[in-house]
Amino acid sequence: MRAIASLQALLMCLLVASQPAIAAAPDPLPSWNDGPSKQAIVKFVADTTRQGSTTFVAPEARIAVFDNDGTLWSEQPAYFQLLFALDRVKALAPQHPDWKTKQPFKGVIEGDTKAVMASGEKGLLELIAVTHAGMTTEEFSKTVTDWIATAKHPRFKRPYNELVFQPMLEVLAYLRANGFKTYIVSGGGIEFMRPWASKVYGIPPEQIVGSSGKVKYEIRNGKPVLVKLAEVDFVDDKEGKPAGINKFIGRVPVFAFGNSDGDHQMLQWTAAGGGTRFMGIVHHTDAKREWAYDRKSHIGTLDKAWDEATQKGWTVVDMQKEWKVIYPWEQK
Amino acid sequence: MRAIASLQALLMCLLVASQPAIAAAPDPLPSWNDGPSKQAIVKFVADTTRQGSTTFVAPEARIAVFDNDGTLWSEQPAYFQLLFALDRVKALAPQHPDWKTKQPFKGVIEGDTKAVMASGEKGLLELIAVTHAGMTTEEFSKTVTDWIATAKHPRFKRPYNELVFQPMLEVLAYLRANGFKTYIVSGGGIEFMRPWASKVYGIPPEQIVGSSGKVKYEIRNGKPVLVKLAEVDFVDDKEGKPAGINKFIGRVPVFAFGNSDGDHQMLQWTAAGGGTRFMGIVHHTDAKREWAYDRKSHIGTLDKAWDEATQKGWTVVDMQKEWKVIYPWEQK
Repeated sequence: MRAIASLQALLMCLLVASQPAIAAAPDPLPSWNDGPSKQAIVKFVADTTRQGSTTFVAPEARIAVFDNDGTLWSEQPAYFQLLFALDRVKALAPQHPDWKTKQPFKGVIEGDTKAVMASGEKGLLELIAVTHAGMTTEEFSKTVTDWIATAKHPRFKRPYNELVFQPMLEVLAYLRANGFKTYIVSGGGIEFMRPWASKVYGIPPEQIVGSSGKVKYEIRNGKPVLVKLAEVDFVDDKEGKPAGINKFIGRVPVFAFGNSDGDHQMLQWTAAGGGTRFMGIVHHTDAKREWAYDRKSHIGTLDKAWDEATQKGWTVVDMQKEWKVIYPWEQK
Repeated sequence: MRAIASLQALLMCLLVASQPAIAAAPDPLPSWNDGPSKQAIVKFVADTTRQGSTTFVAPEARIAVFDNDGTLWSEQPAYFQLLFALDRVKALAPQHPDWKTKQPFKGVIEGDTKAVMASGEKGLLELIAVTHAGMTTEEFSKTVTDWIATAKHPRFKRPYNELVFQPMLEVLAYLRANGFKTYIVSGGGIEFMRPWASKVYGIPPEQIVGSSGKVKYEIRNGKPVLVKLAEVDFVDDKEGKPAGINKFIGRVPVFAFGNSDGDHQMLQWTAAGGGTRFMGIVHHTDAKREWAYDRKSHIGTLDKAWDEATQKGWTVVDMQKEWKVIYPWEQK
């Protein structure tokens, strides 16, 4: 075995060694038009990986953080985690006859979005609580996995985990191929993302940072479990993002990508690190292929972060102009 | 450049390939006597890395967690983080004349441990608060780095980061050499460990899980900072350890090492994962070279976890019998 393995190693190395001195590198970002954003990303990677240059970043410091909703996948007509919660309410309704007459549940069951919205943040938190709490983390993970496998997006009639941005998948892979550790830093729930995000983005669970609810450790029929409580533990949004990065990662990222004011502080925090840095924003400009929204949006509002990006020369991606395709299924 | 690199690769590979089919592996745990604990650790690594065996663990699932205080370094006469806090109080006293007459500060300044202890948990939390809060995370990191560089342990008259257990350093390196990701999961503060633990243990900041205080994001002279507040964010001890592992890592470890009842739930959580698992406890049995304590200790009490370990056949390390040396400086 060992001898054969060594032989294989030798042959592989001979192949590597026999490559021409200058190999034509394939385009690492094929779904990006050759615009300012693609150029900025490629320049950043070249600068930070050039041995001996003043812009070089040591491999262990190559931390790249990405917001999820609106940055790696779509977030319209509402955060997908909220749509998950609404679906859960409908699924659980038979066991809760009182919901038929009680808002915001009544509104959810009847598809009366107005009534649901009228219940305000308190109502929405109530929805999250009853659909996210009470069960064990293992049980919750299963409900998410089942939902991802069966639910379809209202506009595209496809599973939600197919509504990821192909150009951003290429950025993730490109950074990893250059020794970067890619993280998700999302306002969404950790427990909601981990069951599917690892497969879709190639980011392991331990590199997914997000909001969390409190849990209670207990022994159920001799087996330890973590029971999800209806109590908020940490909100990984706005000011929470630098706090989450500091707590979970303990290093200042050199690369950060977001799409809304919820990512503003994460981008500021990354920029303040000094040295070679990349700050990027996905600007939703494509009403036809995805959605177009920014300053006055009910979700993913991009206003203050956009102003600072313009001022400081951060990268703002015009998805309509710069992305050849939005979703993986559009590829030839 | 490229051609040279390829040539080097080729040469290296030739060396690898030309090794004998069976190479005599050097002892990965030289500071361990050949007792039951060493045998259990070596067997676990062999079992989990044997391709095709039923005990094989996929590389991405090779998560190993270690408590810090009493498991990777000593914790007597008190948790080193508390000793750090006491030193900080003395250093800050000149700016706080009122402390001369106010417990527990008066006791700290006068070295009256009784008075300090008499102030109870409330008093100790007050000490932690005034010595850990108010400054930015960057400023706090610097005070820790300075303390580690200058403070000396009362008994050994050496820097605290030299009081790490040589046999455990070998376990960390041995696991990493076999594709395991090593984590610290400690009741101690994340911000207290990160400035020095990465260097000492070879564990990067993002793999150090611990207790944390709340922080506030703000802009100070145009620069974003995180200011440490006197409010507890998360206590990573007892039931908190499985919760911390679930939150930060999102996988159930296959290997866990602790030393006290504070690690009991972490060990149970690891054991419950099923499949090939290793649960280990460092039993402090060496009053001469380190300290001897367990059931009735004021710190690092080992009682319930010890009983379950005996019952379930977990590994309990008798440091006096099984460790050739305790600290790195004792090595020949």
